Amino acid sequence: MEVVDLEATRPGPGEVQIAVAFAGICGTDLHIAHGAMDARTGDRRVIGHEMSGTVVSVGEGAEQWTPGTPVTVMPLLWCGECSTCKAGNQHICERLVFVGIDSPGALQELWTVPQEIVIALPSSLSLRDAALVEPVAVAHHDVERGRVASGDFVVVVGGGPVGLLIAVVASSRGATVVVVELDDFRRRVIESLGIECLDPREGDIAAIVAEQTGGAGADVTFEVSGSQPGLTTAVDALRPRGRLVAVGIHPQPREIDVKRIFWKELEIYGARVYERSDYEAAINLVDSGAIPADAIISSIVPLADAPDAFSALAAGGAVMKVLVDVAGGSAS
Amino acid sequence: MEVVDLEATRPGPGEVQIAVAFAGICGTDLHIAHGAMDARTGDRRVIGHEMSGTVVSVGEGAEQWTPGTPVTVMPLLWCGECSTCKAGNQHICERLVFVGIDSPGALQELWTVPQEIVIALPSSLSLRDAALVEPVAVAHHDVERGRVASGDFVVVVGGGPVGLLIAVVASSRGATVVVVELDDFRRRVIESLGIECLDPREGDIAAIVAEQTGGAGADVTFEVSGSQPGLTTAVDALRPRGRLVAVGIHPQPREIDVKRIFWKELEIYGARVYERSDYEAAINLVDSGAIPADAIISSIVPLADAPDAFSALAAGGAVMKVLVDVAGGSAS
Repeated sequence: MEVVDLEATRPGPGEVQIAVAFAGICGTDLHIAHGAMDARTGDRRVIGHEMSGTVVSVGEGAEQWTPGTPVTVMPLLWCGECSTCKAGNQHICERLVFVGIDSPGALQELWTVPQEIVIALPSSLSLRDAALVEPVAVAHHDVERGRVASGDFVVVVGGGPVGLLIAVVASSRGATVVVVELDDFRRRVIESLGIECLDPREGDIAAIVAEQTGGAGADVTFEVSGSQPGLTTAVDALRPRGRLVAVGIHPQPREIDVKRIFWKELEIYGARVYERSDYEAAINLVDSGAIPADAIISSIVPLADAPDAFSALAAGGAVMKVLVDVAGGSAS
Repeated sequence: MEVVDLEATRPGPGEVQIAVAFAGICGTDLHIAHGAMDARTGDRRVIGHEMSGTVVSVGEGAEQWTPGTPVTVMPLLWCGECSTCKAGNQHICERLVFVGIDSPGALQELWTVPQEIVIALPSSLSLRDAALVEPVAVAHHDVERGRVASGDFVVVVGGGPVGLLIAVVASSRGATVVVVELDDFRRRVIESLGIECLDPREGDIAAIVAEQTGGAGADVTFEVSGSQPGLTTAVDALRPRGRLVAVGIHPQPREIDVKRIFWKELEIYGARVYERSDYEAAINLVDSGAIPADAIISSIVPLADAPDAFSALAAGGAVMKVLVDVAGGSAS
């Protein structure tokens, strides 16, 4: 990974060129940096898909976008023609192009994208916090898939940025939320927000959840850890007819107690990316102050230091979300 | 397993004594006969829970039941007080008593049960066919859990009595149904009903389903085989956002491709027993002739031969559903 000078792509018909302000580093970006997704990215790709910025210039037919407008991008391009698109599930289109993975991404000063994936931001929303809209949209989609409602007891297994955001969005709906996380720093961040966070090494999570729910179990669990123990916990903690939302990436097949799914009539829902409605809800959540941006953003690094930030993230340690200050306006 | 003389239980307050006409032998009954469920049954238990009969006498407070009335029994007794009952899911009550497993069952000439689980049958329905109501209720519940609708493409993995009945109920809703079954005899029975039935040894089922659905995949799959290959097929054959209903009993944890569940936003629903509404729908389905009883009932044996019938079923072979003619009215 390196920072290089490239010729900026000029906006063609229907395209918008954006001066990127901030770009968040996502777990997927780390996988790409490690070469795990070369089949999709090739070995040379500008990545990044969590971002905020302002419109710089537009191509023919995109004149509705005024230079200077604050924007974010919903980085999904669908075909509109496959059976999944026709069924109304464009966000998981069978030929989905994820911008920033399958095509050039936001970790560049001037980024040109099709206008249909540009979304205007309210002027009240800071560009720094707006870089959180994409992961908040992920969390909102997950919570929608789990149909979390007021009064629900929710367990989030995995307390990284997405797990934390799921916990915050579920709490904002009036759910009681418990997060399960191994990392001490992340547990402290989550607890600082007034959300209970358990260390799975300190007891049987399903038993603790049963105790907290009068023996019933959780209404909804979110599996965000991508691990076998996390998945088992997310199944075991559910009440009869409880719902498990599968968010984390499991690189290999996992063991699941199918008899328990049968016996308790459990439900499992896969949840991937987001729909336009999730993006709009996420903008409102960040703009309203419901998302504790200060606690989530661990550090902001200048673009020149992005490769080092990737290395530091890969090494683990005391970190939640790292933003890259692409425009160079406010390095920390 | 043996046939013995026992004193008939007289109906106490709120109870109804039934002269059992026919009782079906279920896979669960076979497990019990093999001692696999001794922890629930003890080592000496009258079993059987698929049945039809007529009211003989009633206890105090059950006078609404007139002797001679044709009836069946929905063999579930719930506590009404646990959190699952209070949530409206009495059928999977945390203290559920399954009558015929956890308490004495229908394989006896005179069977006494609480009146609240007795259900009157229409006079148009033969007592022979009425013995199928319980497994039809299972199938109806499964199809409800899968929200099968007209035009859906449905795959049923496992073509025993329950798989066949799921296929029939789904077909009756206007779905296109394909069953997957290893046993030659069962495949022939299913095909004789005009339902496509595939041998999984003759090709990749998911690929065949994709071909039949223009590349999309199945809307709903039912896992009724209880096997690892069956489960994998039921996951792999689904379209994006497709629904898998877990019906079969998996004695040990199974491997599931959780990444595929995530990627395609698949949904898995456990499905166990039935609700009262399923029982009523099942009575209507059998009474209307929608259930091909002649094809499903492989043989009818007298009560004296029931132990031999269990042995024959355990040995496998050319069989779908076996009924026991408890009253001795029409041995085959």
